[in-house]
Amino acid sequence: MRVSVVGGGRVDRETADLARRLGRELGERGHEVVCGGRGGVMAAACRGAREAGARTVGILPGEDPAAANDHVEVPIATGLGHARNALVVLNGEAVIAVDGGGGTLSEIGFAAVYDRPIAGLGTHDVPGVEAVDAPEAAVDYVERAAGDGRGRD
Amino acid sequence: MRVSVVGGGRVDRETADLARRLGRELGERGHEVVCGGRGGVMAAACRGAREAGARTVGILPGEDPAAANDHVEVPIATGLGHARNALVVLNGEAVIAVDGGGGTLSEIGFAAVYDRPIAGLGTHDVPGVEAVDAPEAAVDYVERAAGDGRGRD
Amino acid sequence: MRVSVVGGGRVDRETADLARRLGRELGERGHEVVCGGRGGVMAAACRGAREAGARTVGILPGEDPAAANDHVEVPIATGLGHARNALVVLNGEAVIAVDGGGGTLSEIGFAAVYDRPIAGLGTHDVPGVEAVDAPEAAVDYVERAAGDGRGRD
Amino acid sequence: MRVSVVGGGRVDRETADLARRLGRELGERGHEVVCGGRGGVMAAACRGAREAGARTVGILPGEDPAAANDHVEVPIATGLGHARNALVVLNGEAVIAVDGGGGTLSEIGFAAVYDRPIAGLGTHDVPGVEAVDAPEAAVDYVERAAGDGRGRD
Repeated sequence: MRVSVVGGGRVDRETADLARRLGRELGERGHEVVCGGRGGVMAAACRGAREAGARTVGILPGEDPAAANDHVEVPIATGLGHARNALVVLNGEAVIAVDGGGGTLSEIGFAAVYDRPIAGLGTHDVPGVEAVDAPEAAVDYVERAAGDGRGRD
Repeated sequence: MRVSVVGGGRVDRETADLARRLGRELGERGHEVVCGGRGGVMAAACRGAREAGARTVGILPGEDPAAANDHVEVPIATGLGHARNALVVLNGEAVIAVDGGGGTLSEIGFAAVYDRPIAGLGTHDVPGVEAVDAPEAAVDYVERAAGDGRGRD
Repeated sequence: MRVSVVGGGRVDRETADLARRLGRELGERGHEVVCGGRGGVMAAACRGAREAGARTVGILPGEDPAAANDHVEVPIATGLGHARNALVVLNGEAVIAVDGGGGTLSEIGFAAVYDRPIAGLGTHDVPGVEAVDAPEAAVDYVERAAGDGRGRD
Repeated sequence: MRVSVVGGGRVDRETADLARRLGRELGERGHEVVCGGRGGVMAAACRGAREAGARTVGILPGEDPAAANDHVEVPIATGLGHARNALVVLNGEAVIAVDGGGGTLSEIGFAAVYDRPIAGLGTHDVPGVEAVDAPEAAVDYVERAAGDGRGRD
């Protein structure tokens, strides 16, 4: 399935490593990664997913597809600015949040709006986010929750 | 100034009364209300603001301006669905959240993205939201915070 | 009713005068003007409408409501870039195009999509646009066509 | 390069055959097809492109990626309604229009706005559209024009 990975656009090394492991885990289990196409968690998750041979889709805020990070296979320019966050969530059957600030919080909100299950790794502590402590657990959760019919199937 | 009032689309009587008082307080202090144009907190806040003679703007998810609640003076149809939440926040210099679910959480996230001060009345407990216990305190807070230059202009 | 006025963002003096007369005519007949909020035809039409005491709404491409021209009474920031052209059309019951380039052509297309009657003053010569030679004739046409039920309600 | 193919959502057999040949020609020359993801010209062009082994991207008006036609490899849900037409144009370096009504006209307008070269096969006769009479000529034109630096390169 397609999984939206959301999180901070600028993160420290440790968080980037975590996001890369998450991307790799998703890819190894046959999932695609949808993200906002920029840096930080987005770039690291795409990098990991590509290393595992998975497709990565980056839904960008700006008008230029070439602004995507190097690990996005299919860049989609929107020109919508931050309103594109709704599209990032809409295009995954489940969401995994890693770290992140206001933009990530908006995406967690959209996950509730669109009824997508959401796992969180060191992200906002709000109801509805299943806090997990490792990439494997995050993927386990969204596979189970989306499979339970809570996702778009 | 224009203040975005965000919150649940379906709320109980008590919450509606609170939102109406908030709208009235904003109107009496010379502010305009921007909201998502639908029911619940949005309708109640617009109703209060209109009672105080203030302008109300409703930025709607659908394509029909006539879908606005009866207390919206200037309805704006977007056809953007929930992505219009970004526009609701963008058009206020500050945000006040009352109650609310996922949509409101997305708007709290956008408030952080766009650097709008935000007061909360019985809403999500997340960093950045100034929790207050009455409409007057909410308006006090956003007046002060936006005046401090944290808001737009 | 609300009428969307679309047209070039930079125009010569003669075209600006024409748009201003159009705005004034609309205002004198009790209509509101919706436009893209920027310069050229948009500013001139808003100026005329305001001179006649009518409300003007400007739906802007950028994130800053303050970027509206001086004659917009209700600025709406969208942050959507040119995709906001769809919203400009959606919020009028009829459309009048004056001059204009690609953006205006996109709005003429949206007028057909959303089934809005459209009058044209020196604009693109495409099927569906009722070419007229004066502001009065443009307003006559859209009043009649929207009244015929071709417009929204 | 990526080429946006735009056109009618419901077309006769002959037009569908033309669009399919266009998609195949694009695919055989190594290009990807971006479209609005629905039926008619969009489905036929995607079908042709897939037959030639090319990637197809469908940028949908609605919220459900599963609403894409069967020949879209990468569906992108937007929930933006017709405003998504801007995104369809933004994601190609050039545009080819086949037949089409108001929606297609809006995309021709956006092609001018975003400075994309555009070839037309039996579509609107407006300045800026290079009218051609066969799929091969359409692809020749956009390759040349985008190569000339008129496209986003």
